[in-house]
Amino acid sequence: MPVYPGDTVSTTSTVIGLKPNSSGRNGNVYVRSVGVNQDGEVALDYVRWVMVNRREATEEIGEAVIPDLPGAVAAEDLVVPVEISGYDEVMKTLAGSEHLWGDYEVGEKIDHVDGMTIEESDHMLATRLYQNTAKVHFNQFAQKDTKIGRRLIYGGHVISLARALSFNGLGNAFAIAAINAGAHANPTFAGDTIHAWSEVLERMEIPGRTDVGALRLRTVATKDLPCADFPLRITEGDKAGAYHPQVVLDLDYTVLIPR
Amino acid sequence: MPVYPGDTVSTTSTVIGLKPNSSGRNGNVYVRSVGVNQDGEVALDYVRWVMVNRREATEEIGEAVIPDLPGAVAAEDLVVPVEISGYDEVMKTLAGSEHLWGDYEVGEKIDHVDGMTIEESDHMLATRLYQNTAKVHFNQFAQKDTKIGRRLIYGGHVISLARALSFNGLGNAFAIAAINAGAHANPTFAGDTIHAWSEVLERMEIPGRTDVGALRLRTVATKDLPCADFPLRITEGDKAGAYHPQVVLDLDYTVLIPR
Amino acid sequence: MPVYPGDTVSTTSTVIGLKPNSSGRNGNVYVRSVGVNQDGEVALDYVRWVMVNRREATEEIGEAVIPDLPGAVAAEDLVVPVEISGYDEVMKTLAGSEHLWGDYEVGEKIDHVDGMTIEESDHMLATRLYQNTAKVHFNQFAQKDTKIGRRLIYGGHVISLARALSFNGLGNAFAIAAINAGAHANPTFAGDTIHAWSEVLERMEIPGRTDVGALRLRTVATKDLPCADFPLRITEGDKAGAYHPQVVLDLDYTVLIPR
Repeated sequence: MPVYPGDTVSTTSTVIGLKPNSSGRNGNVYVRSVGVNQDGEVALDYVRWVMVNRREATEEIGEAVIPDLPGAVAAEDLVVPVEISGYDEVMKTLAGSEHLWGDYEVGEKIDHVDGMTIEESDHMLATRLYQNTAKVHFNQFAQKDTKIGRRLIYGGHVISLARALSFNGLGNAFAIAAINAGAHANPTFAGDTIHAWSEVLERMEIPGRTDVGALRLRTVATKDLPCADFPLRITEGDKAGAYHPQVVLDLDYTVLIPR
Repeated sequence: MPVYPGDTVSTTSTVIGLKPNSSGRNGNVYVRSVGVNQDGEVALDYVRWVMVNRREATEEIGEAVIPDLPGAVAAEDLVVPVEISGYDEVMKTLAGSEHLWGDYEVGEKIDHVDGMTIEESDHMLATRLYQNTAKVHFNQFAQKDTKIGRRLIYGGHVISLARALSFNGLGNAFAIAAINAGAHANPTFAGDTIHAWSEVLERMEIPGRTDVGALRLRTVATKDLPCADFPLRITEGDKAGAYHPQVVLDLDYTVLIPR
Repeated sequence: MPVYPGDTVSTTSTVIGLKPNSSGRNGNVYVRSVGVNQDGEVALDYVRWVMVNRREATEEIGEAVIPDLPGAVAAEDLVVPVEISGYDEVMKTLAGSEHLWGDYEVGEKIDHVDGMTIEESDHMLATRLYQNTAKVHFNQFAQKDTKIGRRLIYGGHVISLARALSFNGLGNAFAIAAINAGAHANPTFAGDTIHAWSEVLERMEIPGRTDVGALRLRTVATKDLPCADFPLRITEGDKAGAYHPQVVLDLDYTVLIPR
């Protein structure tokens, strides 16, 4: 179910896997979270993993229990909440883009061009909206004594900014149908300017639908680095293969767009 | 038609004139914009001009086509969206001002006294509200390499601040009926404190109405300069006649106010 | 009456007492303010005092007229706007706390743990919400020439932050029923990080109610000082008894909480 203003969403999370790190000090925890609206209808069902410290270091590492997860949500599993008809020139003009599903090609890269600078007030206001109260985002008194010395910007805010910037180039992509994978590649701080680019990974037909198709996208966001050259990874030297130090987000997701 | 919460306004702009500058590098473009609500009713119809660069410099300057525009909107063309009755002492107390239409005199100058300091977060939040995404307002990474080195505050935000400050002195002026002319005299930046003053240019009766009258006003906004002395233009030296360097807005508009 | 979104509240204030200071330059003014909703129902009725300068210094100090005020609002005068039934484990989980009225003890101190850093934009946005336009909060151009040199944060915003932080430890305290006393102990500025702690002063039964009880609380907010040690007053030296210089709020109020 899509979510509308006035809905109340509550979430239940279940630990579905554990992957201890060999250090014995921490590991990855796999979590499935299901959000339902006030009528019990599923609004979001997703899996992610986060690195968590152990209460105390151990030498008994234990075995990994890694859930069997698909690489991406399949076309037949996408939920399309609306029927699109009469998506004509007027609609495209209002959306600010001529390009529909059939106009994108697999492998195509799009520079979203615009940049947006983040202030401390801005990211805290957005983070409160999600009722995320983690002190790394809000407590400068505590953060000043950490290695980074600053408040860290919530990764969910960076995802929101990247999605917003992506409308310049993906103006008709009206909904996110799935998140397949993603990494918060580097931290973001107030004063950073976010740019983004996207690559079309897959162009998917949706079974039984001729009005709407899906695009599987990689959207990459950067800090203080315009994206005309589509930065992603370091290509040379010791750190080859690692994320470019200015890349802050690498998100693999699927959008719906009229055909 | 006035605009109410929940309305959807869309705008169509038409180029109605061109005035090439002698440099061959840029010129003024005259634009008429008409905003209509979801029922096709006109919410705003106005003309303005902006300086725009040519794609490339030319020696063939071309002829000017300058539209014939009135100096101000005439009293008989003002739209009064409400009828006012029983605007008594209680209403004046709620508005915070005793002064109605008949209490203002042509030539009277009003210092609006209060000052408001603008933060980067504040002007960007307000500018997003208008879906203005111009990078000069949002992208510090790009702005740092410009001559000014900073994000510029959207002129529409300065107009909003000046109008808000003007309620201290014009508390019963409940609506703007027309904008006659205006200049963004100097740029504004985060950290600037905005003050404002107004002059009554004209006191206009509205044909057929005894409940409401109109005041044509000049409202001047400044940065980091209180307005007790009504600053506007440089009066001496080489630059005499130019705007005072702390003046950021000079707006000629018409308000409605109970009689 | 509780206040709901869409209500319009208007307030009438009456001076009920005066306490001239011996300097002849200022004194305390006691004010009763009554806020009513659009139907004339009382939303809030409270008394406070503020130090105000005299128009000009005088040697004729005059006599004090000090209203006879209770030390706290009595249990029988508390208004409980709702009936609580079925406040079960699910409700407690949603509130994020197991602790109901009977779980708190008089004398118990609670460290609310979290800290929140205030930006200039944040406090000005919140202060506009209350239509407080005092220049000390908004006008940096004027403030730069004062002894503190900065914009002062509105005390009402500090109260709001302290109340918000207090949910970590008082998660089921769903409403403020009364404010008994309070002091803005020291000024707060942008960049300060607010922490808070509370002490249970009294556990009150409400006549005729078995579903809801009241807790009289002291909540203390600090700037740039975590509250694990419950800071309040200076205990040694010349200034013993004065507020700790990092304490910004000392509020005595009464909350409602399910039994």
